[in-house]
Amino acid sequence: MDETPGLAREWKKSTHAGKDIDCYDCHKALPGDKDGYLHHKVMIATIVTPKDCAACHEKEVTQQQPSHHAKGGQILASLDNLMGEVIGGLPAVNAGCRQCHGSVVELDAKNMPTAETWPNTGIGRINLDGSKGSCSACHGRHRFSAAQAREPDTCGKCHLGPDHPQKEVYEESKHGILFASFRDEMNMKSKKWVVGVDYTAAPTCATCHMSATQTQGVTHDVGDRISWTLRPPISQKLNMIKLENGDEFDLPASQPLPKVGDAAKGSTVKQIVSWQKRREKMKDVCMACHTDRQVNQHYEQFDNLVDLYNDKFAKPIAAMMEELKKAGYITPAPFDEKIEWTWWEIWHHEGRTTRHGAAMMGPDYTWWHGIYEVAQHTYFLWIPEMKEVVMKKDGNTKFADDLLAKYFKPIDGHDWYFNGLSKEAIDKVRKGFEERYGKGSLK
Amino acid sequence: MDETPGLAREWKKSTHAGKDIDCYDCHKALPGDKDGYLHHKVMIATIVTPKDCAACHEKEVTQQQPSHHAKGGQILASLDNLMGEVIGGLPAVNAGCRQCHGSVVELDAKNMPTAETWPNTGIGRINLDGSKGSCSACHGRHRFSAAQAREPDTCGKCHLGPDHPQKEVYEESKHGILFASFRDEMNMKSKKWVVGVDYTAAPTCATCHMSATQTQGVTHDVGDRISWTLRPPISQKLNMIKLENGDEFDLPASQPLPKVGDAAKGSTVKQIVSWQKRREKMKDVCMACHTDRQVNQHYEQFDNLVDLYNDKFAKPIAAMMEELKKAGYITPAPFDEKIEWTWWEIWHHEGRTTRHGAAMMGPDYTWWHGIYEVAQHTYFLWIPEMKEVVMKKDGNTKFADDLLAKYFKPIDGHDWYFNGLSKEAIDKVRKGFEERYGKGSLK
Amino acid sequence: MDETPGLAREWKKSTHAGKDIDCYDCHKALPGDKDGYLHHKVMIATIVTPKDCAACHEKEVTQQQPSHHAKGGQILASLDNLMGEVIGGLPAVNAGCRQCHGSVVELDAKNMPTAETWPNTGIGRINLDGSKGSCSACHGRHRFSAAQAREPDTCGKCHLGPDHPQKEVYEESKHGILFASFRDEMNMKSKKWVVGVDYTAAPTCATCHMSATQTQGVTHDVGDRISWTLRPPISQKLNMIKLENGDEFDLPASQPLPKVGDAAKGSTVKQIVSWQKRREKMKDVCMACHTDRQVNQHYEQFDNLVDLYNDKFAKPIAAMMEELKKAGYITPAPFDEKIEWTWWEIWHHEGRTTRHGAAMMGPDYTWWHGIYEVAQHTYFLWIPEMKEVVMKKDGNTKFADDLLAKYFKPIDGHDWYFNGLSKEAIDKVRKGFEERYGKGSLK
Repeated sequence: MDETPGLAREWKKSTHAGKDIDCYDCHKALPGDKDGYLHHKVMIATIVTPKDCAACHEKEVTQQQPSHHAKGGQILASLDNLMGEVIGGLPAVNAGCRQCHGSVVELDAKNMPTAETWPNTGIGRINLDGSKGSCSACHGRHRFSAAQAREPDTCGKCHLGPDHPQKEVYEESKHGILFASFRDEMNMKSKKWVVGVDYTAAPTCATCHMSATQTQGVTHDVGDRISWTLRPPISQKLNMIKLENGDEFDLPASQPLPKVGDAAKGSTVKQIVSWQKRREKMKDVCMACHTDRQVNQHYEQFDNLVDLYNDKFAKPIAAMMEELKKAGYITPAPFDEKIEWTWWEIWHHEGRTTRHGAAMMGPDYTWWHGIYEVAQHTYFLWIPEMKEVVMKKDGNTKFADDLLAKYFKPIDGHDWYFNGLSKEAIDKVRKGFEERYGKGSLK
Repeated sequence: MDETPGLAREWKKSTHAGKDIDCYDCHKALPGDKDGYLHHKVMIATIVTPKDCAACHEKEVTQQQPSHHAKGGQILASLDNLMGEVIGGLPAVNAGCRQCHGSVVELDAKNMPTAETWPNTGIGRINLDGSKGSCSACHGRHRFSAAQAREPDTCGKCHLGPDHPQKEVYEESKHGILFASFRDEMNMKSKKWVVGVDYTAAPTCATCHMSATQTQGVTHDVGDRISWTLRPPISQKLNMIKLENGDEFDLPASQPLPKVGDAAKGSTVKQIVSWQKRREKMKDVCMACHTDRQVNQHYEQFDNLVDLYNDKFAKPIAAMMEELKKAGYITPAPFDEKIEWTWWEIWHHEGRTTRHGAAMMGPDYTWWHGIYEVAQHTYFLWIPEMKEVVMKKDGNTKFADDLLAKYFKPIDGHDWYFNGLSKEAIDKVRKGFEERYGKGSLK
Repeated sequence: MDETPGLAREWKKSTHAGKDIDCYDCHKALPGDKDGYLHHKVMIATIVTPKDCAACHEKEVTQQQPSHHAKGGQILASLDNLMGEVIGGLPAVNAGCRQCHGSVVELDAKNMPTAETWPNTGIGRINLDGSKGSCSACHGRHRFSAAQAREPDTCGKCHLGPDHPQKEVYEESKHGILFASFRDEMNMKSKKWVVGVDYTAAPTCATCHMSATQTQGVTHDVGDRISWTLRPPISQKLNMIKLENGDEFDLPASQPLPKVGDAAKGSTVKQIVSWQKRREKMKDVCMACHTDRQVNQHYEQFDNLVDLYNDKFAKPIAAMMEELKKAGYITPAPFDEKIEWTWWEIWHHEGRTTRHGAAMMGPDYTWWHGIYEVAQHTYFLWIPEMKEVVMKKDGNTKFADDLLAKYFKPIDGHDWYFNGLSKEAIDKVRKGFEERYGKGSLK
């Protein structure tokens, strides 16, 4: 340990050191560990997995294993990864995507983890022992601090940037502002860290999604309190189905619920947590500091924004993309046409941003990085590109115009596109404004 | 208060609690309060307005009421809002724009604030009692801390992002760097908080725009020390006209000044604060730490940048847009043509960014997010789009070429566009460089 | 000093004050100083240069003078500056570029520095006494603190933004996360500040690039431990040639090495520091906390990413741009055609970002702000623009198609572009995925 003094000294500051948990306790190779090797006369393994941590932290790992976090590696087998490996390149996937999503750990001829797959502390790492994820994704080595995992920057390792700017939204929000101002009153090292009791100045990401309230315990199943999925092109409310085998999955509210005892995904349904119940869990956190009116009306503002995004933009565009594909105007392959990139960024970047902005009260993200870009790119990129692909095949834009008439025209919010912002239309807006804000109010 | 322990405990940490100012003192419904309701046997109101705060903080509210901040809700009756409501959608305006600008508070059938308009702590909120704004926009509930309002992150709730990245500019500047390094020496909780006396390590936003110096008191009229407006397409120096009725307004330096005693805006001119006087107030802050040469030459660099932006880009483009509209190449309606979005982003996003970058010494914002984008989008988006709209109507680009000849050609800075960066032109630049930096200096 | 109390009080907190180094010690005008003037009866100079600092800090200045930092002003005589002055404008160069790169200090008729060139603390400032740079670029006036210079925000004054987001990459990385969590354990004011000894929680920029380890001293030659240049269009490994006259320069590993004693750049080669040696110096820092496997495999991931960027994108595009220029499809002048801006942003913004992202472990920058944009803009902007310039001249795209066949087709990573993501191609990818991740794994 003299070779890496910083590593050892960090461990000395850990709770582990105080309880005489040393290197070997975590790094010893268990019988059957494929990555064991002889080091200073004992068999050890480089990579410590959630299965190893579960020897002491069983409850936390039992919560974490079926979570979305632990399943982050599923992206490795998705079309997103096809984009990564084919259009980008494997080295960019290794140094990029997989540092958050996790790699599938592989060994070289000497049974050591390959450079392609290690170092990697991705939260959905697929480990050699079958366990999923990496506790050190959040609890940095070799201190393994709970306080550090409660910091917003910890979540910001992955939850930032154009496709899900949660960190940026948080920092803009009142919550983030108060955290920055009062971080010395946050009592981060408190063992229980109950919001409203151990600290009141501000919540961090962990407060709302994982940590204890006066009526709820800590959970390491990070999706537990989430009622909307804001990830896919079209948002849905999500019920959670928990299985007898310890696994769980989300079922969109649009789909029929199974019953407890039904067979599902190779196991049996043990419990159903409705999206309403999940929302109640989140509201319970909010109500440590806010009245129910404040909380309920925040959710109303948030729901309305998601509905606007879904109904005005996401659903009709998704339907038109499908029709373009079926009718042969675009190929079945993803990402080989510009219009596919445009739609991808509308939902995957800007559409997610507006939804996360509204969820966590970062108005700049809801508007400027959100709906503003969704609308601008829909009207001034996506529609012209759709007309172009149709024109290219047919020599006219009839098919595109028909799609717009079918999917956009019935929606009030697109009226200005079809009927123009004529003097008449602006006058109509002016009148509405004047009723609301007084005569001569539109400038 | 057991229901929301965090709220109550935050209040307990406030100066209010120390002075026995409790919930009812601020939340009691005054006679005539439209939003009063019976709660635990007393009439209270959910929303506490500046008028309520003025009961104790009269001086601060008197300064705040006529300020730009308090008038942030005027955007609700502008074409910006038309873009918001029509092209985006009302839910995005509620969760976006209005969280900074403020909503017009409305009541439901039960006299409770509607979810559309509450929660809302927008700085220009239009309250039911006729007062404007929200003190909790900056002084977070329920601590209402002056120290917290002095934090740069507090201003960053609204002053960030593509259209006015003041927070980002500050963070890049020497001022922001020193604040980050020495925040434990900032003495944020000091009552008077006089720059150069109570703290010297760095200024925050509040220091320069609001807080006390050895010769100036605190002001809650946040535009008091501002001499340029950097907001509109074309910047102007601003004189401030203060009225007998307590209101005030900015008058561009290009317009004739009224005299004290003249009638104006339904009242009488009480005082005129020239842009030079406003600038002197700001320089007084700078000179707590900097010599007059440093300060004056900073202003010279800043003024020159604003002039460059105004004269090379904003004025001629604005004039050409006007001519295009008059001649029918583009419709009178805003935002229904791509070229309008391009010009909008040139002045509203990139043009503001370069001006704020220079004002507060964030070179990356002056250059890369500023003039670099202004120039790139002028030459490679706006000009081609102008030629396209003219070509579409006339079948040739003569009208566009004539506009460029009229407005851009007389300006030295556009010479390269008309005469090319020919080998000759580059040689000319090379020669100039060599005179300055020595032979063979251009690589 | 009563005039600027903040300045004086900052100085009082400095090590200088403790050692009785006062204003005059640093500001006295030396014989021959062109900017000396009479102030309170003594000859002083406004600008304190590294040559002045060297009176006490000789070792630091000797390291700093030949460094890349000190040479930041060379950009003033480059085509980048041509873009700045001609396409932007001199005031934007003064308030933008030169605030980081440094200005060439000039005097007015009264021998005082001009507003165009002062205030300026750019790291490559060209001073009147022939010295280069500005110590206060990092050590803020008038505290001149080492602790403050070790803060990541200090480097972030210049190292941020679209063209080199090192600050953003750091903040996303584990290193930055741990710094934010444990900054109170960083022991920033320690005199020696040896990593692994005086602090172990996290490294800052200074830790890796400048500060002491158990076997290395501090260096003010900031490129000392850098083995790749990530700045130019195509990255190269760099050997460093140190000269007898105290100067030094980087020699790409592709070029033949001189021998010690050879004549070079008006002096004689004194020492050669190979890129491998420079990398060993950096690894020595890493190994204060990480095992050699961790460190070596990180470098493997990083090298692979740079090679991917170089070989798949940068080299072939640079070669095609050269051919387009030679064949007269684009002019020899820079920045007068859209395709030149596109290629510029691919390498100068996005290509640098992916390389810095991988170097310092910020996956979002490696991927989303990096290779994702490099690829998207190569395929959907640069290629179409190349076809357009060829079509415009020839009436067909043959020359462009031939270039792509010559430079892109032989590269595996571009196969999808030529042969499509046909159902067959996707099936091939699916098969590969299934071998790796199991049946039915592509969704």
